[in-house]
Amino acid sequence: KMEKKIAVILGDGIGPEVTQQSIKVLNAIASRFGHAFEYSYGIMGADAIDKTGNPLPDETIETCLNSDAILFGAIGHPKYDNDPTAKVRPEQGLLKLRKALQLYANIRPVTTYRALQHLSPLKAKQLEGVDFIVFRELTGGIYFGKKELSSDQQTAVDECTYTSAEIERVTRLAFKYALGRKKKLTLVDKANVLETSRLWRKVVQQIAADYPEVAVDYMFVDNAAMQIILNPAQFDVVLTENMFGDIISDEASVLSGSLGLLPSASVGNTVALFEPIHGSYPQAAGKDIANPLGSILSAAMLLDHFQLNDEAEAVRIAVDWTLANGFVSKDIDAVNNYSTTAIGDLIADHI
Amino acid sequence: KMEKKIAVILGDGIGPEVTQQSIKVLNAIASRFGHAFEYSYGIMGADAIDKTGNPLPDETIETCLNSDAILFGAIGHPKYDNDPTAKVRPEQGLLKLRKALQLYANIRPVTTYRALQHLSPLKAKQLEGVDFIVFRELTGGIYFGKKELSSDQQTAVDECTYTSAEIERVTRLAFKYALGRKKKLTLVDKANVLETSRLWRKVVQQIAADYPEVAVDYMFVDNAAMQIILNPAQFDVVLTENMFGDIISDEASVLSGSLGLLPSASVGNTVALFEPIHGSYPQAAGKDIANPLGSILSAAMLLDHFQLNDEAEAVRIAVDWTLANGFVSKDIDAVNNYSTTAIGDLIADHI
Ligand SMILES: CC(C)[C@H](C(=O)O)[C@@H](O)C(=O)O
Ligand SMILES: CC(C)[C@H](C(=O)O)[C@@H](O)C(=O)O
Repeated sequence: KMEKKIAVILGDGIGPEVTQQSIKVLNAIASRFGHAFEYSYGIMGADAIDKTGNPLPDETIETCLNSDAILFGAIGHPKYDNDPTAKVRPEQGLLKLRKALQLYANIRPVTTYRALQHLSPLKAKQLEGVDFIVFRELTGGIYFGKKELSSDQQTAVDECTYTSAEIERVTRLAFKYALGRKKKLTLVDKANVLETSRLWRKVVQQIAADYPEVAVDYMFVDNAAMQIILNPAQFDVVLTENMFGDIISDEASVLSGSLGLLPSASVGNTVALFEPIHGSYPQAAGKDIANPLGSILSAAMLLDHFQLNDEAEAVRIAVDWTLANGFVSKDIDAVNNYSTTAIGDLIADHI
Repeated sequence: KMEKKIAVILGDGIGPEVTQQSIKVLNAIASRFGHAFEYSYGIMGADAIDKTGNPLPDETIETCLNSDAILFGAIGHPKYDNDPTAKVRPEQGLLKLRKALQLYANIRPVTTYRALQHLSPLKAKQLEGVDFIVFRELTGGIYFGKKELSSDQQTAVDECTYTSAEIERVTRLAFKYALGRKKKLTLVDKANVLETSRLWRKVVQQIAADYPEVAVDYMFVDNAAMQIILNPAQFDVVLTENMFGDIISDEASVLSGSLGLLPSASVGNTVALFEPIHGSYPQAAGKDIANPLGSILSAAMLLDHFQLNDEAEAVRIAVDWTLANGFVSKDIDAVNNYSTTAIGDLIADHI
């Protein structure tokens, strides 16, 4: 019997309704396997700005630090997006949390589901053998570098900085994963142009020496953006810096046929965070039509993180069962579909 | 009768052999339509490093400045790519040339060919109605910002800078193109994170007021990386900064089914440069197997740039004729194929 504290951040848009399904599922796991999960709630994003003016109140950081893992919904609201002068933005909350908890590695498995192949924009033969995982550095680079707008507002600057130490920790983690997989690691960079990329290449070359079993290759980001579509089966572990990872991992998510069911983990030195890769999808908020599988599969990654692998497997089996039986949301089947809540209930019951 | 000076830079890898086909084709156009094209040759890239130690000798810049347009092959050699300590790189030549000639807009049409649909990684229905054009800013941003490696070699920095003036000139050009097309412009940025992106959004919003007929929308680059595959027909003119443009335009090139036939133009205040989007493809160099259509269609863009639209159309008709009749290179048909030279001859003869 395991006792765990889980911090829950419902977030914006469809965040709350999908996360609530994951809690149902975690409760079902707790009762079947005899664990105790205790939830404490924090606020972040547009939700937190509305309530406190601050996209990430200190209490939320406290709540997260006092927990064993964090389950997060989604962030963002369109009212901030087209206002270049807005001083406070929902996304600042998530970026600050990543930094505060040193969540330096964002891990995104890219898998395809036979039941969803007809939804993929790619031909079936492109999807054969696709099973890779993107490691995105999450607390460095241009996201967190110095930002400046000149006083005449005519010149803007964003600085991209990396240190060897920042590159090393996520690289070691990626190599460890590669050892447990197909033993191939691809560094995606732009070493023909960027100084930071050349440092990445140097550090990865050095660390590669400690993992002689892992085959390493290097790919420019522009080529990677093509290869992910042209020949996605070539990849096993893809390692990259923060901004390239944002683009490349979202691009890779189209392979599956539905963004709605892709999970992610953001790990660091202490507590880890689990969230679906989809955004806050404000048009669907409150309508009970969003796909809860991305969040539920993120909860499965959370269970894996607790070393509760049988429990995680039970969640994945239940998810596969809903897909195989057509208990799917509107994004997957526009005609015959089930509500967010109904799918959560079905999965919890199946467990 | 038109007299024009064309600077030719053959470049690296397959650059020379594909560019030579374009010259054949331009000569065929000249003799059919009674023009006179005079060629002068310059060197750049690995080729220039081998010969002079300098990836872009001053004479090449001179040659370009004294011409009406530049026809360029490809750049890059693997011996420089995995050496993070190399002081001189082929790519520096191209970057320096872009800056020296102020080639601030890279223009890449993304079209699909019915004859190649079977080669596209995407399902046929994804390709319906795809016809857009990417405007990539080419002389600013992180490509040209300050670069630093600390003296202990543990910290690297790349600075991304944009001024309103830099954003404005490429934006005005993109709006002008949009007016002659489907009147839609999409700015791709990361305004929820980057200061430079917020400046882009502000400037584009201002300029949009001068083009009320053009519908403008804004898309985060991570989302754009998905939308280009999920729903490419939604785009007309895509405008973006240098690094995002590098990634997004290469990604978009997979739609067509072959990178080998996509052309590009890089325009500025004076002379413009035309090159295929494919790289130097060193494995194929000297084998007479590369696809010359990317270069030949770039020559067609060059003719358009000279306002020789009938001549450009004649080139495109000849290209379509080769595709329709299976006179294609190995990348398009692995079994029945023609050499680089043979395809160049066929197109020149057809003209
Ligand atoms: C919301 C945004 C700041 C964030 C990012 O760019 O990191 C998101 O796109 C993601 O990938 O988690
Ligand atoms: C060769 C390289 C420097 C160049 C770039 O990144 O701009 C190339 O990828 C391109 O897109 O023209």
